[in-house]
Amino acid sequence: VSSGAAGRRAGSPDTRSEILEAARDVFAQNGYDRATIRAIARTAEVDPSLIHHYFGTKDQLFAASIDIPIPPVEALRSAFSEGDGQIGRRLAETFFAVWEQEEARASLLGILRSAMGGEDQAVAAFRQFLSSALLENIAPMIPGEDGRLRALLMASQLVGVALTRYVMTLEPIASAPVGEIIDLVAPRIQSYVDEALG
Amino acid sequence: VSSGAAGRRAGSPDTRSEILEAARDVFAQNGYDRATIRAIARTAEVDPSLIHHYFGTKDQLFAASIDIPIPPVEALRSAFSEGDGQIGRRLAETFFAVWEQEEARASLLGILRSAMGGEDQAVAAFRQFLSSALLENIAPMIPGEDGRLRALLMASQLVGVALTRYVMTLEPIASAPVGEIIDLVAPRIQSYVDEALG
Repeated sequence: VSSGAAGRRAGSPDTRSEILEAARDVFAQNGYDRATIRAIARTAEVDPSLIHHYFGTKDQLFAASIDIPIPPVEALRSAFSEGDGQIGRRLAETFFAVWEQEEARASLLGILRSAMGGEDQAVAAFRQFLSSALLENIAPMIPGEDGRLRALLMASQLVGVALTRYVMTLEPIASAPVGEIIDLVAPRIQSYVDEALG
Repeated sequence: VSSGAAGRRAGSPDTRSEILEAARDVFAQNGYDRATIRAIARTAEVDPSLIHHYFGTKDQLFAASIDIPIPPVEALRSAFSEGDGQIGRRLAETFFAVWEQEEARASLLGILRSAMGGEDQAVAAFRQFLSSALLENIAPMIPGEDGRLRALLMASQLVGVALTRYVMTLEPIASAPVGEIIDLVAPRIQSYVDEALG
């Protein structure tokens, strides 16, 4: 076992996928909040620094473990940081950039489906991830007591489009060019922020 | 059989539930569009006029068959008919009036869950109902070529809130007073209409 661990530690092609597998296990067992890079490293029999090297932060590792190609927290932070009335557009563009990729879409549909079917560990981890990693990062950027609620309503608009476009495939939303959807949705999302800004 | 049919025809307490059962069968087998009151009457062994007497139109019968207490097409028509800048509010109020009722919510969650799980006949019927009965009634009230798309985006906002509030129960959206959610959502839905009106 120790030579195998040493082999993985050197960064063999399998190391990444073994880390991802360990991450999925630990996130599912402990939830997103209580899972640590250290525990994932122990499970994968690698050094924690190697995980940081490959995947970055915990939220990036989580995103990679569920096949989401864009680092969500960073994308959200940069969507908000410019604060130029284009927050709604950048959020919508980021959201659909992920959903329009086939692999990510399959993964997200899987999560949405399990979420609907009832409580399962992976879903609970995903919900914690949404709460801790995403919501905690967006909500403070929306002023007012109802910042978190507004952030979730913005997310609800996007998730609702995912449901009608990708899951229920209702026409004409299923076949509309994604750019047309973004043009229509972005101002609504923006207005949640603008209203809070006063 | 004929005496039993006569008994039901007279409107025994079972007649309503037998009609609803027949309706569920026929809608699932034929889809919403091709199902007829006549075929449902034949299955339930009652006169078609009795179905109209008990349930009204086809869309009202469908709503009753899936336990939705508010006649959706009428509610939508009246939400739009006044055209006074309160369309978004009336739509949101109607939507949440249904979801906040426990029985209707259980039924809608069941449909949403099956819709996520993949294609099944009842889901296909529900999708046709959304398309034919609801969308066909709303879309013409929103001017412009993208009226149908706008109607679906308005619906997406509402369905997205249902998903985060009732299914994923993300906080604070799950515990927020429904009035606060309506206050925040209604202007966004209204703006889809206002923009189309010019």
